[in-house]
Amino acid sequence: MEMNKPRLTAFRWVPIPFQGQVRDLPVRWALEEAGIAYEERLIEDDAHKALPYRALNPFGKVPVFEDTGIVLFESGAIVLHIAEKHGVLLPRDPAARARAQSWLIAAFNTVDPEVMSLGDIDHFAAQEDWAKQRRPQVVRQLTDRLRNVAAQLERHDFLAGEFSIADIMMIAVLRGLRHTSIVSEIPFLREYRDRCESRPAFQRALAAQLAPFARTASAA
Amino acid sequence: MEMNKPRLTAFRWVPIPFQGQVRDLPVRWALEEAGIAYEERLIEDDAHKALPYRALNPFGKVPVFEDTGIVLFESGAIVLHIAEKHGVLLPRDPAARARAQSWLIAAFNTVDPEVMSLGDIDHFAAQEDWAKQRRPQVVRQLTDRLRNVAAQLERHDFLAGEFSIADIMMIAVLRGLRHTSIVSEIPFLREYRDRCESRPAFQRALAAQLAPFARTASAA
Repeated sequence: MEMNKPRLTAFRWVPIPFQGQVRDLPVRWALEEAGIAYEERLIEDDAHKALPYRALNPFGKVPVFEDTGIVLFESGAIVLHIAEKHGVLLPRDPAARARAQSWLIAAFNTVDPEVMSLGDIDHFAAQEDWAKQRRPQVVRQLTDRLRNVAAQLERHDFLAGEFSIADIMMIAVLRGLRHTSIVSEIPFLREYRDRCESRPAFQRALAAQLAPFARTASAA
Repeated sequence: MEMNKPRLTAFRWVPIPFQGQVRDLPVRWALEEAGIAYEERLIEDDAHKALPYRALNPFGKVPVFEDTGIVLFESGAIVLHIAEKHGVLLPRDPAARARAQSWLIAAFNTVDPEVMSLGDIDHFAAQEDWAKQRRPQVVRQLTDRLRNVAAQLERHDFLAGEFSIADIMMIAVLRGLRHTSIVSEIPFLREYRDRCESRPAFQRALAAQLAPFARTASAA
């Protein structure tokens, strides 16, 4: 039934550097991998600052995911919910499952903070003195972390052996580096990224995020 | 049986500013709340850089949690595992559970990156020019985020209504600000922190983390 489809909230438009890396992407990707139809609600770039929206997402960010009486925010919580509710995208073997859950959190808490630090510098402060002084350290620390990720991929195609929500989130995080060659310079990581991003479900998810941006631009 | 106790890996000693905020703390706290006995393995500050340990934690960090054939790293994944395996510290009501899961991830991915940015400045770069220029912006952005957290606590004692792993992780993250007055200056957040940290299980967990540091210091 139509009314039972979950509803995903995303932005109608974002500036070009962020197109293709807003965090509704991993949610769309998980839904596409699992073959789950969903409704889309698009909000304007300033609607998320308004109080009614804060009741759904306290930080005024996207995505929000509404699914038969429950509301989730934070893409990581949403992909975990999708995996658990539908029994998909998480290994059944307990050891591999533990590995997938560990890597899911590592993507957020160990890799993403370094990616965000570089993004803050490159997108919002590139011309500031502090940013110029700080950038080499950030790149060095980030590269160290990424080499630890790459080391896991020498013997496995995916972080937990089979493809899982850990890969969905790690790739979503790594997309914050598209304006650099950092990922491309680490062979196992480059191959891993290409392997994940060539999946048809990823391609459909990316197209779904980008479609409203193109419509908005041509209407402007 | 003794051999069925899970095993937690933590550091034997860390520098004073980090004592009481290493990330085995939320794991110990969750175990104490749930009444689960565990074994402790303490490693030296440089053992975590060695290759054998990287097989357990790819980033060479603590904690690691070994539980009957499975290995987890990242404190968030571990507390989630404890909550799910033992049916504790997560609300049973689906809407409240979704809220707890969302806040758990928000603690890591939305609040902690800002806390880490300030920690990097204050603990590792306080005298550098870039850090002096950057600090006010970091404090402003962090305070904005924390006000969003505090807004949730105006009508609830805990983030998901009842005490949950979301509170355990949020408090673990906020402890990275103990060297500042930022939390104390936001009344609802200060009261929330005090409410959580006065729990006997927290006090036992904190004492357990600190005990080896004191032994190591007195043996030195």
